[in-house]
Amino acid sequence: MTYRLWYWPSIQGRGEFVRVSLEAGGIDYVDCAREEGVDALVENMEAYKRPPYAPPYLELDGMAIAHVANILLYLGERHALAPSNMADRYWLHQIELTIADMVAEAHNVHHPVGGGAYYEDQKDEAARAAQQFREERMPKFLGHFEAAAKANEGDWLIDHRWCYTDCSLFQLVEGLRYMFPKRMKTIEPDIPKLIAIHDAVADLPGVKSYLNSDRRLPFNEDGIFRHYPELDGQ
Amino acid sequence: MTYRLWYWPSIQGRGEFVRVSLEAGGIDYVDCAREEGVDALVENMEAYKRPPYAPPYLELDGMAIAHVANILLYLGERHALAPSNMADRYWLHQIELTIADMVAEAHNVHHPVGGGAYYEDQKDEAARAAQQFREERMPKFLGHFEAAAKANEGDWLIDHRWCYTDCSLFQLVEGLRYMFPKRMKTIEPDIPKLIAIHDAVADLPGVKSYLNSDRRLPFNEDGIFRHYPELDGQ
Repeated sequence: MTYRLWYWPSIQGRGEFVRVSLEAGGIDYVDCAREEGVDALVENMEAYKRPPYAPPYLELDGMAIAHVANILLYLGERHALAPSNMADRYWLHQIELTIADMVAEAHNVHHPVGGGAYYEDQKDEAARAAQQFREERMPKFLGHFEAAAKANEGDWLIDHRWCYTDCSLFQLVEGLRYMFPKRMKTIEPDIPKLIAIHDAVADLPGVKSYLNSDRRLPFNEDGIFRHYPELDGQ
Repeated sequence: MTYRLWYWPSIQGRGEFVRVSLEAGGIDYVDCAREEGVDALVENMEAYKRPPYAPPYLELDGMAIAHVANILLYLGERHALAPSNMADRYWLHQIELTIADMVAEAHNVHHPVGGGAYYEDQKDEAARAAQQFREERMPKFLGHFEAAAKANEGDWLIDHRWCYTDCSLFQLVEGLRYMFPKRMKTIEPDIPKLIAIHDAVADLPGVKSYLNSDRRLPFNEDGIFRHYPELDGQ
């Protein structure tokens, strides 16, 4: 079976967290809007009786499963991308939801006033938001993920095998390195296990070939993680 | 079995979304920090091998289940507060996650620069954020929940029985009415089914007696939904 994934075709954005797990797991999918365009995405999204609020979503038997964490929960269960016992399942979903919160806050840094206005119209507010994000939020979130990783004795978040949440931590580090290269250089020595997980995910065969393919879009200033040098700092 | 819920003891906040479902379902719980205080909460939270990022969380067999949507997913499965078939389960969780997103954006309205600074130090930014939230985000989110409700022919979000997500919609409407009374007066005629669900949840025996008890804390200006009149408008 080939999944149909719908997401904005020109950015990594939230969709990338789904793409990385699909690629790591060698799960067949079509990135529909990259083949059919944005109009097809909007048309598809509005046709569901039970509509998603926003992309990304997985089209499946006429239904849409939306929200990154919800999609990954489904893929984790269906394709064994995570342990199936109750304690591990809720723990991984919990970390995934904390990642989602950090992603939303990272977006908020360049759009503190709201997504409906341009960055250029909220640069002063963004500068203040970025300072707080760099100084307070990044150490707190990343320190939490480091502690979560250290709760496991194996090389991954859980047991001795990668799971979908490892993939999401990889993508989070990727995004933060793009958005805050100076700040990450300062922080990374404090989060060695998180960085080791990042590197190990990058080295998974499926991910490695994905990153070298043209399916991996470059980061840009339309996505979640945007590199505005004036918002970075040590 | 009596659950142990941990959340800040002086606010409704995110914890309230868990409390309302527990009360609606007649599920026994202790609101631990209201009995033992904030220090006990912090001490408890830091003692887990697999730590929650933040309250609220449910203490259960030595583990912590954190994040409102994750807790409700668990309670929904364990106590039949939601249908158990796959399509309905992911659909309700999806709506719950969209509610969580709107709650985070509502908090962002009075703290656009960040939670680490006081509202008084970001009032100008908050005024701009509030305008966009009122004019663009509220109609979009609430219109989505109305469409989600209308996807079901029964009186609730799904089938002919309340589920945990109905309870969360109740609490969302409560919070928005407190935070934006003028704006909600304008919008409510456009979301009749959502308001009907709100009213029906308020009328559930467990919720009704909860709302009349001193367990229901009043809204205040330390929580997520804060009434700053200068941020409201028609």
